[in-house]
Amino acid sequence: MLQLGVAALAAAEVLAAASRELKDAALIAAAAAIRAAAPRLLEANAQDLQTARARGLSGALLERLLLDSTRIESMARGLEQVAALEDPIGTVTAEWTQPNGLRFQRVRVPLGVIAIIYESRPNVTADAGALCLKSGNAVILRPGSESFHSSAAIHACLEAGLVAAGLPAACIQRVPTTDREAVRYLLAGMTDYIDVVVPRGGKGLIERVQREARVPVIGHLDGNCHVYVDREADLAMAREIVLNAKLRRTGICGAAETLLVDEGAAATHLAPLLRALLDAGCEVRGDAAAQAADPRVLPATEQDWLTEYLDAIIAVRVVPGVEAAIAHIARYGSAHTESIVTENAVTAERFLNAVDSAIVLHNASTQFADGGEFGMGAEIGISTDRFHARGPVGVEQLTSYKYVVRGTGQVRPG
Amino acid sequence: MLQLGVAALAAAEVLAAASRELKDAALIAAAAAIRAAAPRLLEANAQDLQTARARGLSGALLERLLLDSTRIESMARGLEQVAALEDPIGTVTAEWTQPNGLRFQRVRVPLGVIAIIYESRPNVTADAGALCLKSGNAVILRPGSESFHSSAAIHACLEAGLVAAGLPAACIQRVPTTDREAVRYLLAGMTDYIDVVVPRGGKGLIERVQREARVPVIGHLDGNCHVYVDREADLAMAREIVLNAKLRRTGICGAAETLLVDEGAAATHLAPLLRALLDAGCEVRGDAAAQAADPRVLPATEQDWLTEYLDAIIAVRVVPGVEAAIAHIARYGSAHTESIVTENAVTAERFLNAVDSAIVLHNASTQFADGGEFGMGAEIGISTDRFHARGPVGVEQLTSYKYVVRGTGQVRPG
Repeated sequence: MLQLGVAALAAAEVLAAASRELKDAALIAAAAAIRAAAPRLLEANAQDLQTARARGLSGALLERLLLDSTRIESMARGLEQVAALEDPIGTVTAEWTQPNGLRFQRVRVPLGVIAIIYESRPNVTADAGALCLKSGNAVILRPGSESFHSSAAIHACLEAGLVAAGLPAACIQRVPTTDREAVRYLLAGMTDYIDVVVPRGGKGLIERVQREARVPVIGHLDGNCHVYVDREADLAMAREIVLNAKLRRTGICGAAETLLVDEGAAATHLAPLLRALLDAGCEVRGDAAAQAADPRVLPATEQDWLTEYLDAIIAVRVVPGVEAAIAHIARYGSAHTESIVTENAVTAERFLNAVDSAIVLHNASTQFADGGEFGMGAEIGISTDRFHARGPVGVEQLTSYKYVVRGTGQVRPG
Repeated sequence: MLQLGVAALAAAEVLAAASRELKDAALIAAAAAIRAAAPRLLEANAQDLQTARARGLSGALLERLLLDSTRIESMARGLEQVAALEDPIGTVTAEWTQPNGLRFQRVRVPLGVIAIIYESRPNVTADAGALCLKSGNAVILRPGSESFHSSAAIHACLEAGLVAAGLPAACIQRVPTTDREAVRYLLAGMTDYIDVVVPRGGKGLIERVQREARVPVIGHLDGNCHVYVDREADLAMAREIVLNAKLRRTGICGAAETLLVDEGAAATHLAPLLRALLDAGCEVRGDAAAQAADPRVLPATEQDWLTEYLDAIIAVRVVPGVEAAIAHIARYGSAHTESIVTENAVTAERFLNAVDSAIVLHNASTQFADGGEFGMGAEIGISTDRFHARGPVGVEQLTSYKYVVRGTGQVRPG
């Protein structure tokens, strides 16, 4: 493990000074290597799937673990998309001159060495490796044991890309063991080598990382997201947004988990919204008003307002207006992503200002909580931290900065 | 302690939405309260000084602890200067529209609740309280036991300012005990209430905080700063910069600790630079070349290249050129602040790019490592972290951001 750290530190130094051309060439060569290695990737994946089935893993986990030709092509294309992104390194993000003539620039630099600990999705190997490379960071990947062989095969393609471009293979390293002690060591034993840890996976993993890490963490916890349908919401728009926010994909962190309906819209909007959800196969757990509006609605408990279902289940509550919606979100929400549907611009601004979440939307689905949809090209996750990076974490969020000051002999008085 | 946390959380909510006018009014009223309370502050400070002397504290510590009318006036003026700064909260730092018509804004928001743990300087109470207030953060101050009474008296003035402006007094709270258990609790027991901890003081304090904290930390460790005098340096400029960088104040983190002289400049520049330092009363510990250039130079050991003296002592080494200077800094430096003196623009750019420190300067003193000198108005410290904030930490660095997205009914396809 220490060897990984030493090699990462040396690679990070090379990578910090690497030109955009070099980094992009490595990404494009890696994409080609992935396409060429498709049969090997499928074979490695079949091995992982077999083990997973033998261990009795569930359908959802198997689905996440699966590679097929579409997914392999999409991984390769992902690498090319990251290559097409602007290079954040060296960008001047602020520039000013002081009265004494000193000229200041704030310039983007890499964070250094990033460790990424993830679970079963093998494509994270390619995505995370690519984002770290583009942002000039060396990375140590620690894939979950379920995707051990798939991740190793993908990682070999990334290494091939680096070597083809003349960059050190150690820019993207992989922990070659599924030993859980290795994770402990990454989190607490390598503070001299690792600048930040990014956990990507379920709540258990993220909580463990936040508890054990002795280096900074970029993590996301719950996405208990809300849609608030205001008394001045257009019903057709509200219906489309609610259905999309809840059901487009139920397993992602930007999926809506609670629908709040303004009592001023209850008479007209509540029953149609409930009907649309129920007819689409969604389980609805509601307060008394929601239960009265549709007999298929089950009773909600206090626990429902707090739950990230990640499933075709939604909690529904009627609230006295936008202020009550804001208060409900402050009390039960996880500060991830919330949306208001209303035609009233003043009400919308009130909600957008007062709700303290990483992403607040007006008249749009919460499922836009995604780096790609933000135009960042890709993301390593959605941070619910307030520190360093908040919301989608793309290449820009994987950088730090330094101040460059140019003078003509100035000394400090006094 | 938990009560402090609950009150801070409630105050943070009010403060996040507070207008610039309200926050500035509180700062200006606090400045007036400090001026009016001068006799009380001096009395409280005399009490602290008496205890400190009884405990046999050293002259430097007593000097740091001391309040006099000049320092009281400068504290009051500091509050007014922070009031005059731009309000970072609500600033739009990025804005774009996606092809689907969604309009994105990234908007500055406060971090939330900040805990500041510091040592003997009582003025930190005013500075830190003011910076947190201006950046919309509630703060829990934990002054050192040495300044217990002084800090309490200053804190009372800040509270008076808040109350006069109609803001909750809990926006700026003080831990009313010197119990060391309180620090442990702030660091590890209040993760639901505290968003970030800022330690301000000696290395022991900062290392303890980084070890024990279960919340993010903005800390600075060593400032082992370098001046490199290149073969194309103007001698007069080099002399002035070296003297200022080392001796203007020796106890601050931006003070130079090692002087690197290009061997191409040794024949002309080395002896005059050594003479200037020695004549000004600085102890010089040098390599063989430096010892040969002036008989008063003591021999340097490997340990000297690593030492932050914070005193009138400097280590001097002759290096073969700019690349060797960059390598020396990478090996021994603490990535805080380094300066190159040269008339050659290409050499300067090479140094500014290759040295991976929070602040890199060309033809200027390292003692400019200061938020005030950067034009930030004030600072809470100089961060040597790469994560979140690097370099001077002013009001802008005490903020996070959120994304505000405005749509017209967009839902996410597929």
